[in-house]
Amino acid sequence: MSGEDHAAPKDRLIQALIQLLPHEAVLTEPEELRPFECDGLSMYRRLPMVVVLPDTVDQVRRIMRLCHQLQVPVVARGAGTGLSGGALPLEEGVLLSLAKFNKILDLDARNAMATVQPGVRNLAISEAAAPHNLYYAPDPSSQIACTIGGNVAENSGGVHCLKYGLTVHNILQLKIVTVDGELLTVGGETLDSPGYDLLALMTGSEGMLGVIVEVTVKLLPKPERAQVVLAAFDDVARAGEAVGAIIAAGIIPAGLEMMDRLAIQAAEDFVHAGYPRDAEAILLCELDGTNAEVSEQIMTVRRVLKERGATEVRTARDEAERQLFWKGRKSAFPAVGRIAPDYYCMDGTIPRRQLPEVLRRISQLSQDFQLPVANVFHAGDGNLHPLILFDANQPGELERTEAFGRKILELCVDVGGTITGEHGVGMEKIDQMCVQFRSAELSQFHALKAAFDPDGLLNPGKAVPTLHRCAEFGAMHVHKGQLPHPELERF
Amino acid sequence: MSGEDHAAPKDRLIQALIQLLPHEAVLTEPEELRPFECDGLSMYRRLPMVVVLPDTVDQVRRIMRLCHQLQVPVVARGAGTGLSGGALPLEEGVLLSLAKFNKILDLDARNAMATVQPGVRNLAISEAAAPHNLYYAPDPSSQIACTIGGNVAENSGGVHCLKYGLTVHNILQLKIVTVDGELLTVGGETLDSPGYDLLALMTGSEGMLGVIVEVTVKLLPKPERAQVVLAAFDDVARAGEAVGAIIAAGIIPAGLEMMDRLAIQAAEDFVHAGYPRDAEAILLCELDGTNAEVSEQIMTVRRVLKERGATEVRTARDEAERQLFWKGRKSAFPAVGRIAPDYYCMDGTIPRRQLPEVLRRISQLSQDFQLPVANVFHAGDGNLHPLILFDANQPGELERTEAFGRKILELCVDVGGTITGEHGVGMEKIDQMCVQFRSAELSQFHALKAAFDPDGLLNPGKAVPTLHRCAEFGAMHVHKGQLPHPELERF
Repeated sequence: MSGEDHAAPKDRLIQALIQLLPHEAVLTEPEELRPFECDGLSMYRRLPMVVVLPDTVDQVRRIMRLCHQLQVPVVARGAGTGLSGGALPLEEGVLLSLAKFNKILDLDARNAMATVQPGVRNLAISEAAAPHNLYYAPDPSSQIACTIGGNVAENSGGVHCLKYGLTVHNILQLKIVTVDGELLTVGGETLDSPGYDLLALMTGSEGMLGVIVEVTVKLLPKPERAQVVLAAFDDVARAGEAVGAIIAAGIIPAGLEMMDRLAIQAAEDFVHAGYPRDAEAILLCELDGTNAEVSEQIMTVRRVLKERGATEVRTARDEAERQLFWKGRKSAFPAVGRIAPDYYCMDGTIPRRQLPEVLRRISQLSQDFQLPVANVFHAGDGNLHPLILFDANQPGELERTEAFGRKILELCVDVGGTITGEHGVGMEKIDQMCVQFRSAELSQFHALKAAFDPDGLLNPGKAVPTLHRCAEFGAMHVHKGQLPHPELERF
Repeated sequence: MSGEDHAAPKDRLIQALIQLLPHEAVLTEPEELRPFECDGLSMYRRLPMVVVLPDTVDQVRRIMRLCHQLQVPVVARGAGTGLSGGALPLEEGVLLSLAKFNKILDLDARNAMATVQPGVRNLAISEAAAPHNLYYAPDPSSQIACTIGGNVAENSGGVHCLKYGLTVHNILQLKIVTVDGELLTVGGETLDSPGYDLLALMTGSEGMLGVIVEVTVKLLPKPERAQVVLAAFDDVARAGEAVGAIIAAGIIPAGLEMMDRLAIQAAEDFVHAGYPRDAEAILLCELDGTNAEVSEQIMTVRRVLKERGATEVRTARDEAERQLFWKGRKSAFPAVGRIAPDYYCMDGTIPRRQLPEVLRRISQLSQDFQLPVANVFHAGDGNLHPLILFDANQPGELERTEAFGRKILELCVDVGGTITGEHGVGMEKIDQMCVQFRSAELSQFHALKAAFDPDGLLNPGKAVPTLHRCAEFGAMHVHKGQLPHPELERF
């Protein structure tokens, strides 16, 4: 920096931003900044130094160049529905909102793809594609509100990701503004791309590598028919085993969800979905495809469920009942919100076969911490969402809840799973990254980050902990009682 | 380097390698080196300085540490079936053969996954899984010989990748030895992984980022039924349009292949597959799934093909005829090899809708260069394999063939496609990377490479050209007559 400008750094930055953007696109007053102080993980809050709301790629490039020049950190933000604090702003940084990037630029029905700005809502893509009998497959439960740019940043999933994949499997191309304002185009319309796979690398990178300014997604033909089978079990572990048995029978359901007794009862009391209130667990298994295919699969699924000890197996009588079955599942979070003052939604993934063991250990932890848990799972892909019930007004309960949550994540790693299914690492799970990875992998992550952002200006402090932080956290990755890769002596 | 050792660098290296490895695992005599002088792209040949054949991960780590210490470049090699020269050795480098890493370490049928060493042949995985009614989906035409490590390095596809994806979509976890001998585990058993997506990044990275020493693959249940429909067309463009129409009808075939007249006739004369010799083009459309599903899809596909002007539509009468239809397609390369002294197999990808236009322009180029072309395509995913027929003994024909091949790749980029479908960039297409990408993306590739291999010791000179090389090549990425991203003035 030249040093010829003697204004305070914040004033210099804001003056320069006002040169680049319309006046109303630069927010600096506390009451204007307040809506941006947190994302969906509201236990972390910070006011940003300034919020900018650009509406062209050119403006984003100029903002990034300016911040790079002044060495000011930048946090990008979509709808702020993220659950791991990935969009938590910095008091000394710029909060870059993509809210005005809300246009569908092109919808190419013949080639089943759409090019959209990052601030377009997930569901808006499927709505725009519906007249062509197409839709965008990944469906996070926040899909009414969450944006496609945020979905890419977190590699979001949803109920249907078992069959249709995560965000990374459903996008074709990204345009990205780098930390110094360069514009990159990565991926493309064809199945493979030459060069390194920057498309996959950017997806799920939590705003650490660049700012997404355009997304081209794949669209899928709407299946001819979708049908759901509900099965009740009097034992949670047995329900867990049935999940593996369905997939071992060669069926990949469009959705395969599980709820335990507390979640069932909360949902039933809330929306009257017709769930069996006395069951220990239910499975909802959705099949989609052609008429003939769905009919065949329903027969197989019903047979497997009965063989595996389901006490009741019900196929939705009609589309209204199918919607009702799903309404119960989709309302599970707010339903649990009615039976406790607060709840904390965890997110981890385990190998499917570990489901019975993990449920047993979560139940044990629930007793140890004296906090009830309602379990709602994307069971098919092993993605757990335990909801810990607590009361933040009781002294110590929030801390106990957070400690319980950390134990659940560490349990996921212990059985060969991961600390995140679809919510990202963000602020929430950064310490558990030290449990997930050894220093070799973390060091490689840092080297890779530096290849995109050598000064660490993009979303600093999120997603990947420093080795120093891990040392302080005291974690060491130990799997099945031994270090997975004992170090060789240097020769 | 300390300088206390005054032996020639080559002698120092070989002495140290003999310390690390059994004597017979270090090859230095020209007649021992000869089998490693080229891969499947035999127009490029070089003898390596030394070949090493380790058989443990420890040995690979020690070799990499040694080479890093001595700053000797390393080229890793699987079966050497690659078609872009990616495994071409260096006269001043080590050729690291993974041939002895040929064990299936674990086959977990219940969870439909297998962990294998990188030198295991692609087909051997499916053979081992067959008793469990499972298979590994990606099936490059070299699958009898090519190894899974090479498949990962090139992100290989095959006839079935339209429905089942490329290598990257069918692997779960990799173990990688870094340039300095560190061991990294990337990916995992669950659908998503925290941290940056190193699994996807490594896949298709052509040996530039690390040495793959273990691969965990997904296995799929064998479909209940597979059936193939053959359609003949009297016009190549019409066959191209039918490809898009099948997919627009909501069907994703297990394979959708196209051959033109010259390829049809060569194959028919060679294996008597029952192809219509007088057709201008044929499509082979394979459907798989449950019995009911396949029956429904065949009806739809037959209808679409007839609507799109097929002169003949034949469903294979039985499994024997199905196999025969495929035998013709799979023998197309050797069949073409019978009608010309030499042929050069190209590999590029285009958006499906451009198929008719691209075929027209390849035909024009064929006249301009006075070299016949037989076209064999993975039509469903737009992956072209034009085979240029030539005679290397005719002065100038090889050069004319290479020039023609380059024009085909540049044509692919021009219509919005890419210079590689599944064969990688390697040596062959490195100049065309300058056509594919702008300097912004190439610079990002180099930064990323440096994050893994700062001294450029892993497979140097392949896959990603230097900006200097691009400047010399004189290429500039121009799309539809204009630069895609006109540079902004600096503010």
